[in-house]
Amino acid sequence: MIPTTAREIRLRSRPAGWPAPENFELCEVPVRQPDEDEVLVRNTHMSVDPYMRGRMSDAKSYVAPFALGEALQGGTVGWVAASRSQIPVGSWVRHDRGWRDYATIATKLAQPIDVNIAPPSAYLGVLGMPGLTAFVGLHDIGGLGPSDVVFISSAAGAVGSIAGQLAKAHGATVIGSAGSDEKVAYLTNELGFDAAFNYKNGRSVDQLRRLAPDGIDLYFDNVGGEQLEAALATLVDHGRIVACGMISQYNETAKAPRNLTAIVRSRLTMRGFIVFDHQARSGDFVREVAPQVKSGRIKFPESIVDGLENAPQAFIDMLRGGKYLGKVIVRLADAEARSPNTSS
Amino acid sequence: MIPTTAREIRLRSRPAGWPAPENFELCEVPVRQPDEDEVLVRNTHMSVDPYMRGRMSDAKSYVAPFALGEALQGGTVGWVAASRSQIPVGSWVRHDRGWRDYATIATKLAQPIDVNIAPPSAYLGVLGMPGLTAFVGLHDIGGLGPSDVVFISSAAGAVGSIAGQLAKAHGATVIGSAGSDEKVAYLTNELGFDAAFNYKNGRSVDQLRRLAPDGIDLYFDNVGGEQLEAALATLVDHGRIVACGMISQYNETAKAPRNLTAIVRSRLTMRGFIVFDHQARSGDFVREVAPQVKSGRIKFPESIVDGLENAPQAFIDMLRGGKYLGKVIVRLADAEARSPNTSS
Repeated sequence: MIPTTAREIRLRSRPAGWPAPENFELCEVPVRQPDEDEVLVRNTHMSVDPYMRGRMSDAKSYVAPFALGEALQGGTVGWVAASRSQIPVGSWVRHDRGWRDYATIATKLAQPIDVNIAPPSAYLGVLGMPGLTAFVGLHDIGGLGPSDVVFISSAAGAVGSIAGQLAKAHGATVIGSAGSDEKVAYLTNELGFDAAFNYKNGRSVDQLRRLAPDGIDLYFDNVGGEQLEAALATLVDHGRIVACGMISQYNETAKAPRNLTAIVRSRLTMRGFIVFDHQARSGDFVREVAPQVKSGRIKFPESIVDGLENAPQAFIDMLRGGKYLGKVIVRLADAEARSPNTSS
Repeated sequence: MIPTTAREIRLRSRPAGWPAPENFELCEVPVRQPDEDEVLVRNTHMSVDPYMRGRMSDAKSYVAPFALGEALQGGTVGWVAASRSQIPVGSWVRHDRGWRDYATIATKLAQPIDVNIAPPSAYLGVLGMPGLTAFVGLHDIGGLGPSDVVFISSAAGAVGSIAGQLAKAHGATVIGSAGSDEKVAYLTNELGFDAAFNYKNGRSVDQLRRLAPDGIDLYFDNVGGEQLEAALATLVDHGRIVACGMISQYNETAKAPRNLTAIVRSRLTMRGFIVFDHQARSGDFVREVAPQVKSGRIKFPESIVDGLENAPQAFIDMLRGGKYLGKVIVRLADAEARSPNTSS
């Protein structure tokens, strides 16, 4: 039963600093049946990701800003509820029209996913953009080698949790930082990190040096700020920094590291990247990672928030950190309850 | 006439923040005649360089700290006044026992220089460590290409003035920043820079964007701080930063750039280096640069300070910037007045 109307979340106003619930608006809109070469997708899970904060601003960025008064966008998965294309009804697809319960999209924007390898939500995390980010960051940007000592910040997050496991699978020694003792325990007990520390339990540079007395070779930076400062002080000569994100600086007056001169003194290389430039690596990524996901060797922690109406708060909480472990997913519908007329 | 005693400058105490004259001490010491396989050099010119500030501290660095109570060291040139080696008396050599009028050193530490290509002092600048720094930074670290728009800070300094001319000779468009209108005029009128600005005449980021409306491809960073911040805001996607030095941060609480997130957003690469790691490139460097120095195509501005007793103040003034143009050289003796018994 396809409803005639459904909900979407719009950007009502651009956040100044931290986003707040009043920047968002939940609206009821007609569900449009597909035209020729389109499908109507019942979205079941949507992603909230740090990069979306950038799109909420009007500033120049690597993707166009979200338009005020229009539905937000982002990675989502769901099943095809109506089709006028070669994709049959009932198929699982991934696309970029998240932040809404139903989406009518061109066939070429719908990417089929194999839910026999992993559940649909995994295609927003370990087998999606965060997983590809970890893979490209470690290999293409960071030049990961099996004898590297790797430090990963936000290590219990969507990207960090995968990066740490991929680095371990490659033979590296992996140290992570996170914001609670529970996350730290999870990293070492469940994800196989060699060591981890809670950045709230003392100065990061002291904790990192204690865990890596001979220094670190590679820093996978998801947060900037104090973690970057600790890494700069601990990297060996000719060490590398993968600048994947600086979530600590997206919403506040930047707390820049005070020891950037280490880049000269220790001959460091710091390299930024955006995963959207590296889609050509998707095939290599899936070939390497999907079997390890299917076998259970790579785990993919998820935090599930139910209901589109809770997506703005989930996004805000994800940005602030601390509340969630792993990939934050907003569940829009029960993935097991596909409509009877689509189960064929 | 070789004197029996001569002067040297010792490190009396380690500077806290900016060095001051009381950190230094001028002492009279015996002149030691050479033993077997040694030469006695009458130093005529010595170098004062930013990296020396690092060696005055006790912190871990890429070169050992200077010892308290002992003579400082650094690049110097002079002529051989007495010899028990295959290097004849009267030869010009470069070595690393500066900060003194006379030096008795092992033959292997004395590197002959050709004063028919350029005057002796040039071997402390354009044909010495600063020149090699510019060459390695542009080519090996920065991957300079002929269509690059290059921004160079401290562009009227020892390294910047050479880097700008080398980049121009390679076909690049070159923009420099400096701390006075006179220096800015010198860069464009004498050294062939395409454009230059005085960072004291308004916000650097505004001035840089005006001169490079389509952005810069390569930033050669000698100073860090506000210039680095301006570059981060102006670099094109996939732009590169050569982290050669951060003189603005050597003596004060660091003023870190507040926009490091540009490294991620613009996919920048920032790479630090130390010229001492790249001595193997000296041959290539001399082959490329020496003919251009001899022909006059590459100019090498120098600021000369007379007398060893003035070396500490020259070093301090060089670090603070603003006073000197080009390479700062302390002249210890008249290069034209070699002792009669050595002129054969």
